[in-house]
Amino acid sequence: MIGFTGAALVRADHERDDPAAFARCKADPSARLLLLTGLEPPVADDGALELVPMDPARDDALLLGYLEGTPLFVAGDGDATAPAMRSPTLMAALAVMPPADVALYGVARSLIDWHSRHGFCARCGHASVVARGGWARSCPGCGALHFPRTDPVVIMAVEHGDRVLLGRQPSWPVGRYSALAGFVEVGESVEEAVAREVLEEAGVAVDAVRYVASQPWPFPSQLMIACIATARDDALKIDVTELEHAFWATRDEVRAALAGDTSRFIAPPAHAIARSLLAVWVGE
Amino acid sequence: MIGFTGAALVRADHERDDPAAFARCKADPSARLLLLTGLEPPVADDGALELVPMDPARDDALLLGYLEGTPLFVAGDGDATAPAMRSPTLMAALAVMPPADVALYGVARSLIDWHSRHGFCARCGHASVVARGGWARSCPGCGALHFPRTDPVVIMAVEHGDRVLLGRQPSWPVGRYSALAGFVEVGESVEEAVAREVLEEAGVAVDAVRYVASQPWPFPSQLMIACIATARDDALKIDVTELEHAFWATRDEVRAALAGDTSRFIAPPAHAIARSLLAVWVGE
Repeated sequence: MIGFTGAALVRADHERDDPAAFARCKADPSARLLLLTGLEPPVADDGALELVPMDPARDDALLLGYLEGTPLFVAGDGDATAPAMRSPTLMAALAVMPPADVALYGVARSLIDWHSRHGFCARCGHASVVARGGWARSCPGCGALHFPRTDPVVIMAVEHGDRVLLGRQPSWPVGRYSALAGFVEVGESVEEAVAREVLEEAGVAVDAVRYVASQPWPFPSQLMIACIATARDDALKIDVTELEHAFWATRDEVRAALAGDTSRFIAPPAHAIARSLLAVWVGE
Repeated sequence: MIGFTGAALVRADHERDDPAAFARCKADPSARLLLLTGLEPPVADDGALELVPMDPARDDALLLGYLEGTPLFVAGDGDATAPAMRSPTLMAALAVMPPADVALYGVARSLIDWHSRHGFCARCGHASVVARGGWARSCPGCGALHFPRTDPVVIMAVEHGDRVLLGRQPSWPVGRYSALAGFVEVGESVEEAVAREVLEEAGVAVDAVRYVASQPWPFPSQLMIACIATARDDALKIDVTELEHAFWATRDEVRAALAGDTSRFIAPPAHAIARSLLAVWVGE
């Protein structure tokens, strides 16, 4: 299972646009609430995500959808705009949480975070309001409707013979390396974004981009698109504004790192698709 | 070649953040300008995109990148917010334009369009200003930096035996059918979005989602991700708020439509990845 996938959520697309259906969901005695603190998840004693009964009087809850047939809402208590990047506490909580709960938390976090950073209409500057059960914001000023943003990102295992290109950013934990990655820009395909990013960051031209898998990444809301590409040659010209260091790792070195050996490098963390991608590349 | 891919543009990532380099590009006597009218492309007599010498005095030009080694800027004259959806004139122009020019126009259009609809900071409501050579907007009020938005969309050939599921929206030209499609939502993978959309729109459960290809789509700025998926059974339950009609087309019917036969249905237009996807599905 790839991290942040596999939520048991059934998205209630029709209820979003139907105020009466939304009200029925809210009043449903079996309805539950996922209440984030800032952007942090509530965790029960057994490590699972804690859901509490929905309070029908709450007017800040967004309808995530249905979970096991009953409505599930999400709300945030506290300051969702506070810096809440992957805190050590959060990563420890996610490491023991059931995968379906990790995925559900990802949806909730991205949605709450998007609302907290998009309180105004980008078209006219007027304050916007929650719409469509929490899945949009509308502008009372100009009528524009704004939808949650998901940024596509490519992440690629660039191979040359029996080796793969790994790089690290200065902000990462010491020793950590991963596959290169970058945002898909306006006007390019996945395949073009992979080629551009690898050329920009490492000076390497690639061919034969093959899609492997995808993942939503809730920091804040990316769609990670994982690929394997073939390098034309192995000479590196690192863009030091993007990467601190990069090197070609052998299949054995990657296998060892994925198995927990940190002598050559520290593998990408659990839940990161880079880890699944490297596992596919070594043939696991 | 998939529509809107294959631009010869080299994106000048470093020049975007370097005002001196940007000024040098602008003053380069070989620099050229792609000047849109509203969002419509300038077309030369031979059907190619018309580029004119850059006027260094223009202060509204965005740096697209380098084309054949020389800087290329884009600007829009007229109202880019006017409804400029795929007009018949535009589609006729794109039908005869060289593919690399179509792709270049796509980048330019999406970028100009994004600026025209994002003049204000979504975080604080202050008027924002162009930043990073045209590839961002910054907010003088709160300091937020905003990047052009690209929305990932899945489009899928759902197959059952030797047939594929096609649908049509009421707004389309009479007789036109295409693969089902929908926006990837916050917190789901490509594979999850495919399964959810097909279930929501047609009542069909799918397995085995396989990626085929991708395409940027500049109306206004989507990343189209084309897949083939396998339906568990062929009973349809159409969501009439999404689709006007849907049916299972045989491989021969799809081949005929792609060849121009309109007796059963009209195939997706040139440049749409749906057309490439159906061509892959029939084995062409």
